[in-house]
Amino acid sequence: MELTKQWRDHFKQLRAFDEAISLLYWDMRTQMPEQSAPLRAETIGYLSTEAFKRQTSDSFKQLLDEMEAANGLTATEKRSLQVAKTQYERNAKIPASEYQAYVTLVSEAETAWEKAKEQNDWGMFAPFLKKILTYQRKFADYFGYDAHPYDALLYDFEPGMTVAQLDDLFETLRDELVPLIRNLPGGTASLDWSMNKKAQERICHDWMRVVDYDLSRGRLDATVHPFEITINRRDVRITTKYDEADFRNALFGTMHEAGHATYEQQIDESLDELGLGGGASMGIHESQSLFFENFVGRSIAFLKSVYPNLQAEHHALQDVDFETFYAGVNEAKPSLIRIEADELTYSLHIIIRYELEKALIQGDLSVDELPAAWNKLYKEYLGVDVPSDAKGVLQDVHWAGGSFGYFPSYALGLIYAAQLTESLRAEHPDFETWIATGEFAPIKQWLETNVHRHGKTLTPNELIRNVTGEDISVRPLVRYLTSKYGTA
Amino acid sequence: MELTKQWRDHFKQLRAFDEAISLLYWDMRTQMPEQSAPLRAETIGYLSTEAFKRQTSDSFKQLLDEMEAANGLTATEKRSLQVAKTQYERNAKIPASEYQAYVTLVSEAETAWEKAKEQNDWGMFAPFLKKILTYQRKFADYFGYDAHPYDALLYDFEPGMTVAQLDDLFETLRDELVPLIRNLPGGTASLDWSMNKKAQERICHDWMRVVDYDLSRGRLDATVHPFEITINRRDVRITTKYDEADFRNALFGTMHEAGHATYEQQIDESLDELGLGGGASMGIHESQSLFFENFVGRSIAFLKSVYPNLQAEHHALQDVDFETFYAGVNEAKPSLIRIEADELTYSLHIIIRYELEKALIQGDLSVDELPAAWNKLYKEYLGVDVPSDAKGVLQDVHWAGGSFGYFPSYALGLIYAAQLTESLRAEHPDFETWIATGEFAPIKQWLETNVHRHGKTLTPNELIRNVTGEDISVRPLVRYLTSKYGTA
Repeated sequence: MELTKQWRDHFKQLRAFDEAISLLYWDMRTQMPEQSAPLRAETIGYLSTEAFKRQTSDSFKQLLDEMEAANGLTATEKRSLQVAKTQYERNAKIPASEYQAYVTLVSEAETAWEKAKEQNDWGMFAPFLKKILTYQRKFADYFGYDAHPYDALLYDFEPGMTVAQLDDLFETLRDELVPLIRNLPGGTASLDWSMNKKAQERICHDWMRVVDYDLSRGRLDATVHPFEITINRRDVRITTKYDEADFRNALFGTMHEAGHATYEQQIDESLDELGLGGGASMGIHESQSLFFENFVGRSIAFLKSVYPNLQAEHHALQDVDFETFYAGVNEAKPSLIRIEADELTYSLHIIIRYELEKALIQGDLSVDELPAAWNKLYKEYLGVDVPSDAKGVLQDVHWAGGSFGYFPSYALGLIYAAQLTESLRAEHPDFETWIATGEFAPIKQWLETNVHRHGKTLTPNELIRNVTGEDISVRPLVRYLTSKYGTA
Repeated sequence: MELTKQWRDHFKQLRAFDEAISLLYWDMRTQMPEQSAPLRAETIGYLSTEAFKRQTSDSFKQLLDEMEAANGLTATEKRSLQVAKTQYERNAKIPASEYQAYVTLVSEAETAWEKAKEQNDWGMFAPFLKKILTYQRKFADYFGYDAHPYDALLYDFEPGMTVAQLDDLFETLRDELVPLIRNLPGGTASLDWSMNKKAQERICHDWMRVVDYDLSRGRLDATVHPFEITINRRDVRITTKYDEADFRNALFGTMHEAGHATYEQQIDESLDELGLGGGASMGIHESQSLFFENFVGRSIAFLKSVYPNLQAEHHALQDVDFETFYAGVNEAKPSLIRIEADELTYSLHIIIRYELEKALIQGDLSVDELPAAWNKLYKEYLGVDVPSDAKGVLQDVHWAGGSFGYFPSYALGLIYAAQLTESLRAEHPDFETWIATGEFAPIKQWLETNVHRHGKTLTPNELIRNVTGEDISVRPLVRYLTSKYGTA
């Protein structure tokens, strides 16, 4: 069928652009001489525009129409058509001139945000945020929505998710977490977490071997901000940050990125040429990184198995018994900074941002009121006083980048990960033994079958329903956290 | 003027494609996990085709025509138009279907060549070479020529060069070199050239600092086959091969690639958007690598300045006096393999290939006769017996890759380098002192002014005439080699 070949060619071309753009970005963060930066930015900008043009061109629109009229499409081809059509329609609704102005604004806003954070000066950033919000509200109107403008923005991160659902999920979760956190026992023993970079590198590689992340189709490099990036389906790279003062960052950070990467490596290759490669959603993707980082990495079974090696590398741990070490790795306490938060308190950082950005989009909260609202919620939910905007409302880049609707994905990731882990454990009572003995192949196999291989052929909710028999629910996460951090 | 902006945009777009393709290639050779290879090849192929389409599209043809009709172009814009027009016309002359079939053939031929070389089996490669030759002769006819079909092929490597000129240059050079080589003194002392990789890396970096290659706009990595690659004008990378049995390979190889890279780094940036970035020709480019490798790197002045450090790194040299070391580094003797040849005998390897490929294109020599003809010339010019085709006619990839007309560039590089060095030395009698004291800035400055910054705005011959006041001539090279290797 000539038509579906044309359809596939379209996505093969996009894949080639994606590979080039991803590599240009990866190289910029890991290898590139600094002086190359301005030309590199130009190149990435140009190729991104070229790729975008292909997705919005008249000839692609015609191809879409022909596909819609076609008979005999397979289920996967129909899904491909549906995803591409939705994306096309969203793209086409924004006038090109407005989009161009918005891209420029966001680029300037990120620069302004960096300086504002550095100088702890909210006033430097606020005017940009106001303009970004105006655009975001306009975009929500262009995209269209039934109940809440924020719903329209959620699609880019979590297709199918709504404010109604999130309100329900997050309210329950918040009401469970707040008392749990309030009743946390006092501080754990203060341990020496310092380690030189070389030793951290060795352990990161050991751990990746243990969890069977396929380095023959990836690599690990060092960067200031860790990330996972898919160059192509057989070349999925991760980076980590080696902090010589605290090796926990690199070790658990590497596990986190290895989780993202294993997902990407196990997506069915044939989906790439239907535009269905990549994760089901940001939330599902995050569930895979958090599964590796928390549900495996911070578990007793895993940590016990790697502790002797860790003690051999790090002499300061030789007199520390496992229980003390385990408590240190799993220390939970309310804090100010999201990216440094533990698995127990993390969701509250997200819920705070969700409530604020939803109100901003709705118009219930103004940019000028935002810092005070931020500080109030941190006090209310986490019991902490925010000492400065730099350590408060200015800490994340997301709003400067115009990513409204992104934050919920992080908490959804935890929620999904807990649901999936319960199902995996129920099906395979050997789960803990596998982890303890480093027998990771059956776990990876289960994830491939149930989550990874499907790429974007399933919506997040379809995927979760298929695996767990239920819709999204915070109950498994609450059970996990209560059993791990509860005092009862 | 809107038209010249459009013209510049065309080349800016090509530059972006070039940056992506170069990086995809560099990464493949230095960083990429092996399993990524098939998808990477697809990506490079697709983006190369996209870039080629832009150079041969109807809309570019229209732009060319408008530029031709335009008034008030600057001299550089006129040169840009001329270079682009010639290239367009060459590209347009080959029917797309033939080009596609040829690209496939060449790709298969390279694979066949690799196996044939490995198994020392000429018969495995000969049928491919026959087909490639048929295409090359056809291309020569498409491109058109006055005197000799080989002239038409030379353009891609050395614009303006002809068989008539090359015959004259190479005949003179050969007649000077053959007796010089025959009268070489007996072998030099056998020294221990082994060194571990780490020490070689340190010395390579030292030497790059000495010759002032700008690593803030480049990098050095390890590869099996060393190369220089321009990612963009401020990101020019080189690679080297560390051979622990003989450190001379890495050290002089790095100098060679640093020469190419320094050229690329010093080309006037504004030429990129006129399609005039890059070297004037392959021969001029090679002259810059050979200038660094031989005329600087293997000189008494340079080697004396770095010898104490080298002795400190390599204990086996501590009892070796400088004269013995210098003789070892500059040992010249007839050999079988081009890429291992010294600066004295190297040109003869090239002249042999030139004579053979010229005869093949002309039809004076058949593919079946080629191995015997190869062996005969090696005996005649270099006095060596070729023991096998693997070490003879099958040693180079160039013919398998369809690069007829490429080989002469290597010898032209030596010829140009000697001419340029004579001029530089005549203008600056301090030349040797600069090298001895590592004061490399004035040398780089001279090269920038006289060679590098011009990019493709000058033809090779214009460039050489501007600097030396003469056309290309083998005399300076003969004088250099006679004074260095002559017995008188």
